[in-house]
Parts: sequence; structure tokens; C-alpha cells
Amino acid sequence: MPFPPLNCPVAKDASVTPMPDLDLAGQLFDTLAARTRRGRGIERDSYGPGEQVGHDIAGAAARSMGLEVTIDAIGNLTMLLPGTDRAAPAVLMGSHLDSVPQGGNFDGAAGVVAGLAILSGWRRAGHTPARDLAVMAIRAEESAWFDVPYLGSAGAFGLLDPACLAVRRADDGRTLEEALTAGGFDAGAIRDRRRLLDPTRLAAYLELHIEQAPVLIHLERPVAVVTGIRGCRRLRHVRCLGATGHSGALPRAYRQDAVAASVALLGRLERAWQAREAAGEDLVVTTGEFTTDPAQHGPSKVAGETRFVIDIRSVSDRTMEAFETEVRAEAAAVEAEYRVSFALGEATYSPPAVMDDGLRQALAAGMASLGLPPQAMASGAGHDAATFAAMGVPTGMIFVRNRNGSHNPDEAMDMADFALATRALAEAVAALAA
Amino acid sequence: MPFPPLNCPVAKDASVTPMPDLDLAGQLFDTLAARTRRGRGIERDSYGPGEQVGHDIAGAAARSMGLEVTIDAIGNLTMLLPGTDRAAPAVLMGSHLDSVPQGGNFDGAAGVVAGLAILSGWRRAGHTPARDLAVMAIRAEESAWFDVPYLGSAGAFGLLDPACLAVRRADDGRTLEEALTAGGFDAGAIRDRRRLLDPTRLAAYLELHIEQAPVLIHLERPVAVVTGIRGCRRLRHVRCLGATGHSGALPRAYRQDAVAASVALLGRLERAWQAREAAGEDLVVTTGEFTTDPAQHGPSKVAGETRFVIDIRSVSDRTMEAFETEVRAEAAAVEAEYRVSFALGEATYSPPAVMDDGLRQALAAGMASLGLPPQAMASGAGHDAATFAAMGVPTGMIFVRNRNGSHNPDEAMDMADFALATRALAEAVAALAA
Repeated sequence: MPFPPLNCPVAKDASVTPMPDLDLAGQLFDTLAARTRRGRGIERDSYGPGEQVGHDIAGAAARSMGLEVTIDAIGNLTMLLPGTDRAAPAVLMGSHLDSVPQGGNFDGAAGVVAGLAILSGWRRAGHTPARDLAVMAIRAEESAWFDVPYLGSAGAFGLLDPACLAVRRADDGRTLEEALTAGGFDAGAIRDRRRLLDPTRLAAYLELHIEQAPVLIHLERPVAVVTGIRGCRRLRHVRCLGATGHSGALPRAYRQDAVAASVALLGRLERAWQAREAAGEDLVVTTGEFTTDPAQHGPSKVAGETRFVIDIRSVSDRTMEAFETEVRAEAAAVEAEYRVSFALGEATYSPPAVMDDGLRQALAAGMASLGLPPQAMASGAGHDAATFAAMGVPTGMIFVRNRNGSHNPDEAMDMADFALATRALAEAVAALAA
Repeated sequence: MPFPPLNCPVAKDASVTPMPDLDLAGQLFDTLAARTRRGRGIERDSYGPGEQVGHDIAGAAARSMGLEVTIDAIGNLTMLLPGTDRAAPAVLMGSHLDSVPQGGNFDGAAGVVAGLAILSGWRRAGHTPARDLAVMAIRAEESAWFDVPYLGSAGAFGLLDPACLAVRRADDGRTLEEALTAGGFDAGAIRDRRRLLDPTRLAAYLELHIEQAPVLIHLERPVAVVTGIRGCRRLRHVRCLGATGHSGALPRAYRQDAVAASVALLGRLERAWQAREAAGEDLVVTTGEFTTDPAQHGPSKVAGETRFVIDIRSVSDRTMEAFETEVRAEAAAVEAEYRVSFALGEATYSPPAVMDDGLRQALAAGMASLGLPPQAMASGAGHDAATFAAMGVPTGMIFVRNRNGSHNPDEAMDMADFALATRALAEAVAALAA
């Protein structure tokens, strides 16, 4: 047995934060990569064999260090170091172990590995926390396989619409229910909206994650505290309807040019975005898909129709709502000027998640104790942390610098940066467990 | 025999322009429509059975009024009323009889019908022109079937690249050579670049055509003299190359957003176009195709690539060249601002055709003699007239008001407008034949 038995007398100075077990972290990353690589990328398919390999590796590590290991009805794996006061709400760390197809090794896994390294540090130091410290390896965060994100965390809180059980995997067409059953889990928990995790039993949820954009690379900062997770208002299927015409023969004054009108609208939106950015608002606006109608368009035709997306994200609901109002007003102005009509449709909505002030301060203090410069930023991508925050659990996140973005085989996190982030997280956890 | 024999003594006042035979025109339009309608639209396929029906109808009408009818090696049909001076260069009217798939009855045919109505008027009046007056039913003007426009007129002047013979019909895959042979024509004329028509034997080429845009509808004018046929400089395959990224996580400052950059470029080009228009230059600029890369794009991704077309048309070569230079300069500026690169490629080019001043004046005088208000405009679409102008033949065109554009079953020309245009054309022809 490599670690002292649980609840042994505290033999060392409990006021010193145990150093996370970074050797274990390195071994876990290596094992995960070795066992889930498919060609160039990493593939840990949600509720499939790839994700299960990740859970097996994490569970084995937890058992070998003597943690309490439980698996809930839908496969979430919790690895717990009991505290002296078992009645006190626990501090939970965690993230997901699934990946997108041809993803990287760190998106998700880094948060689980960091938690295990921290608990291993406590075990190695022979310290017992004042309250339970746990790590949760959450199932199926990525929507790449079943088209629904946060299946594991939302399912744990009984939040999933049972209709999700009929959603099919993008590649093999198996339903989520079939995948759950094949994995040995209980689809009934989702069907009955069973609450598997009690949010009132959690003092905090803390998630370490790689940054999914290269902001920290550009800023030359290894670690940042997350201020909030941006929500999203998305006009998924905008259509601009004009009229086709001959590109040579139709003068500008008589055109109902869907491309020109869409360009005018998107130009106005970029200026509106810049104005809000200049005023200090958190906002990103993206048109990632834009196409004329392939059945109608032509090089010598004025385009009669375009289709595109307007994706609006902010940590502030008020900013998103105001910008959507601006989109509708600008579209009306462009309609009048270009003799077209826009069908904007209703926006899909996911709420922003605000991180807990106290946890932000605890993480910032952890960074400061390591001599790191203060750095805070919003998370543009969604994370399981958003589910915990929505359930009223005090939630915090810490980002690790990452080159080349995520969701691709080239994601690249320096182990030195990971070590700094994990140590800062360990400081915050220690403060909460004191 | 419904008409007096050719070269009979001039019995009536030769100084009065014979009234075009508008009853014949109505009958010809009706017969053409009845025999070439397919469902909602008209289909007279280039070098196919549909076009041949048109030629048979025109040829039969010409023979029944006693015109000299000849068919050249590639099927162009010439119907000629001999003049008193057979050595003098002829006045040629004409247009094409083919249509696009599911086209309308008037695009092309109106010019042939107008010519026949004018010659029938001369025959009915018993007048003999001072020089030969002829009508040419030109083959295969539309590029919809063989992807090459002006096959008939360019072929008549020996201008076609023999490689055209291998071009395949869009629908049935037959080559042009096969279609020519099946029609009883001589592909060798194209292979040997034989000149079938001597431009020095033509005093003028005059084409009546429906307007292909609704400018005259908006202006409430029935007829216009054409000032020139716009040329085209087209950047057919523009690509904007940026980098994909997460729509929520990637701040504006670090984006290489191909959509945002393309929108910025097209916005700049619209403003540049407006400036030239305000300065009185003839110019139309169109992006009729625009698409993000379907293999890469997504609603939550910053787009890494766009593809689009920039179609630049003007009656002035100088304007087209200057605008293309402006496109390249604006693209360079946007590249720097948005951290992307544009691959603009080389422009394809078709030259503008300037209409002959004397013929413009003759047509304008014809309009004035009917009490029509003066109206001139550029042709944005190409016409066989461009081929004649390129060969140095003095060329003129007259447009007839047309609702709903052309190349569709809804094109709509009022017979009253056609009558006015044909009478104006008849006046110009009479002046040339005096």
C-alpha cells in the first residue's frame, strides 16, 4: 500500500498545502494518451469504449491511493478523500474524460488529473482535510457524439430531458439509451429525472481546464482565473431573402441583392460589437457559416438568398439581450435600404454562468502565493462548471495556457503550466478544507 | 403568292417607311410558343430539336414571302430581301432563336421576328430597298447548353476555337460536334476556322432584344437605344484564408476570421462602386456566390475560409481595369487588418462592345419619329451584337421593355412595346436602305 491508511493521525504540518503529485499526473496523461490515441488524435467517445478507458485509468489510480470510489447510475466516477467532518459539504474538483473525435489529450482530462494529483498529494503528506475532498470524472461533456453537451453533469442533477435518450450518436447511430445500457448504466435515472447528486452537499465545485483559445499564449501568462462562462444567444438559421437578377443588367438601384444586404448587416454588427467592446462589455459575435443558395446562385446572378448564423456570446445576459435587439434593429434598417427581408428566427439560448467571488479570490490567492501575476478572463466555451453554477453550487474555474486551441490533435499544454495551475488550485482547495 | 414578286416596279411612295407586318409577328410568336413550350417554360435547345423548330418556322415564313433563304455551314439562317444595288454592303438585322432551359418566348426570338416583320412590310408595300436587307436567325447564342456563348455568330466569322467542338451539352453530354453533325451541319467549318460571313459586306448589324432587367419597367419607358454592351472582368474563384477558432473563446483581436474579412472587403467594394457611380461611371459589381467551407464551418466556429466571386462589368475597359486595381488594393488593406490572406486569382475577361454612333442616332431618330421620349442605356447582358461590333461591323441595338427579367418562363413583353421598338428599328433600316 503506497499511501498511509485513511484517517491516520495527522503527523505532518497541516498548515502547509500538500504539494500535488505531479509524477502521478504525468503518468496519467501518458497512459491516457497511449491507450486512447487513434491515428494522430485522441478519441475518448462519450459513453463509448474510449471514455471508459479514461474512467478505468482514473478509477484504478484512485483505488491504488485508497480513495473512496463510487460510480453513479449514469457512470460518473467520484473519487473521495474523507475529511474529519463527514457531515460538512464536500469540496468537489472535476472535469470530463471524453474527447471529441480526433481531439487532444488535455481537454477535460487535465481537470480530473489535477484533482487526482492534489488528492494524492494529501495522501502522500498524510494530511486529512477538514471536510471531504473529492474528484469527479464526469461523463459525456462533449456534444460531438450525441449532439447534447453536459450529459454527465446535467444527468447527475436530474436536469436532462428524457427525450435525450433517443438522441443518436453521430457516427454509428446508436441511441444514448443503447449506449448507457451497453456501458452497464441505468437509463431509467434519466427517464425518471433522478437527482444523483445533491447540490446542497457541495461546498464548492472547482474545475481546471485548458484554455480553448490562445489568449494566454498571446498574453504570455501561464494561468488565469475564470470570471464566468459566456452564455450564448444564437440566431442559428438567419435567411436573407431578396430576388435573383442578371449581374450585368440589373442596376444597383433596382437590386434586391441578398449578399450585399447580408454584408451590410454583418458590417453594421461588427461596428456595434466594436462599440460595446470599447465600452468594456464582454462580447463575442461570430458568423461562422454563410452561404448563398447553391440551387440558385451563379457567378453572373445577383443572389436572391443567403443563409447564415449569428452567434452572440457574453458573460452578461444583459449584453446578449441588448445585442440581439441591436441585430433586429439593424436588420430592419438594412431591409429598408436593400429591399430585402431577413428571417431572423428565435434565438437559441444558453445562460452565462458567473463564477463565485470567493472561489475567484481563493484561486487568485493561490496564484499569488506562487508568484504568478494576476490574470482573469471569461471562458468562451461551455464547461460542466456551468451546470454546477446553475444548480447554485459555488463554482470556480482555472485555465491553463494552451497552444493551438482545443478539439484538435494539436492542442498543446506545457506540463510546467499545468503544474502551476494545479498548485494554485491546490492552494484554493486547502483553504476550503482547512 | 401573298406578296408581289421581287424587283417589281416600285408602285408606292418609297419615301414612306413601310409599316412592319405586326400580324405576322404575332403569328410567329404564337407558333414559336405553341411548338417549343415544355411545361411552364420555352425550350429551344441550341443545336437541338427545339432550336431547329424555331429555324423551321422562321425559314417557312421567309420563303412564303419570297425572300432569298440561305443556311450557312453551321446552321445560321439568312433571309434576304434584295436591294436595287446588290453590290452595296447589306443591312443585317438579327438575333438568336435558341433559349435557355425553361426560358421565355422572347429572349432572342423577338429580334428575328422583328426583322421578318420589317421585311414583310417592305414586301407588302411593294418597295425595293436601295441595298440588300436581311435577317439572320443566329444559332446557339445561349451558353446554357454548351457552356460557350455566341457559337453561331462567332462561328460565322471563323472566330471559334476548334476545341469548342469537344464541349459537351450540360444535359445529355453530347459534344457540339455530334450535335452539329446530327443537325446536318459541317463541324469542319469550325475545325478549319472558316469565315462564313464577310464583315466588309455588312453596312450595319441591328439587333432588337428584350431588356433582361426591369430598368425600363421602373422608368416607364417602352423602348431604349443601347449605348454599349458591358464587358466583364470576373474574379471567379476568390478565396479568403484565415484560421478556424472557437466562436466563444477567441477574442476579436486574435481572430483570423475569413467571414469578417470578406464582409469587410465586400463592404469596401460597395462603397467604391457607389463612388464611381456618383462620378457618372458605368459600372456594376456583383458577388452572386459566397460560401464558407462546408467541410470546415460550424455555428460555433470562427470561419477559416470563404469562397466567392467578384463580377465587374462596364461599357468602359478603363473603369473595369481601375476597379480591379481597387479590388486588389482593398484586399491588401483588409488582409493587414484581419490577419487573413486573399487569393484573388486572375480575372477572366470579355471586352465591352461600343455601339456605332450613327446607328444610335438612327435608332433614336426612329423613336423620335414615333413620339417616343429619348432613352438610352447600357446592356448588361451579352448579345450576338458584341461579336459583330468586335468584327468592326457598325452595330446598333434597341431594347424592348420586359417585365420579370429573362431566362425564365415569366419574361413578359407587351406586344404594344414590341410594335413601337420594331417601328423605330424599321425607321432606322429605311434610312440606311434609302
